[in-house]
Amino acid sequence: MSDYSKILEGIDSLEIAAKDKGLAKLGDEIINMVYSLAESVFINKPTGEKVNATVLSESMRRSELRPLAKSRANAHSIADSAEAIIAYAFLQKKASISEFVEKVLKGFQKEPFPWMDTQMKREADTSAITELLLFIKSLYFTK
Amino acid sequence: MSDYSKILEGIDSLEIAAKDKGLAKLGDEIINMVYSLAESVFINKPTGEKVNATVLSESMRRSELRPLAKSRANAHSIADSAEAIIAYAFLQKKASISEFVEKVLKGFQKEPFPWMDTQMKREADTSAITELLLFIKSLYFTK
Repeated sequence: MSDYSKILEGIDSLEIAAKDKGLAKLGDEIINMVYSLAESVFINKPTGEKVNATVLSESMRRSELRPLAKSRANAHSIADSAEAIIAYAFLQKKASISEFVEKVLKGFQKEPFPWMDTQMKREADTSAITELLLFIKSLYFTK
Repeated sequence: MSDYSKILEGIDSLEIAAKDKGLAKLGDEIINMVYSLAESVFINKPTGEKVNATVLSESMRRSELRPLAKSRANAHSIADSAEAIIAYAFLQKKASISEFVEKVLKGFQKEPFPWMDTQMKREADTSAITELLLFIKSLYFTK
């Protein structure tokens, strides 16, 4: 098992992580893979797709993690914070890729399917990413 | 643990997998994540980057997996086959993400570092992806 902890040197809290550009870049790749895998399982055939910045940003609001992003951040920057948080939780070994996939899948299952139009797909995506962020939030914050 | 086997229904062999467009799309996300994670470990800070199609295609040749792609395939199409093979091995649970990361890391370690220019980086990347493909090859073919 590779040791991922050294990657996080100097990144000591979720608050710092959420504003780290390198973590956002790594998290971008992680979330796209997790999301693609979950969607593949959900629709029962292999597919690959990137998560939309608007979906990530809206999910940060719904999971009430928005305060972790910079206060005047635009959608793209809030999305970066979402990605950074996801990378941070993964690198800290708080959860595995397969647990992340399960949460995204659970989010898909809460919305109507089949997706008849872009709006329905967008809602399903937001539900999926919100579910994942709520899970990550529960790992760091007690209610 | 999510069950990924149903995604592969109708995709019965590595040869078929290598030509599957959906697997190539999913594999694209998997390899970008694995590569970004391995590079983050190697350079000791979080980063995210996509693997170049030329690197994937050249790695298919070096690992002698080129015959799995279509015979008149261009670099992009050979890269798709590399991605599809990676997704297939992962979905078949032949290896974990962390094992993939280890192989890519091993490939980086075989080349000079720090990377002084694009050419050195390209060589390191090709070494990294070749190492991964040779590993996957060893899972399916006995020598």
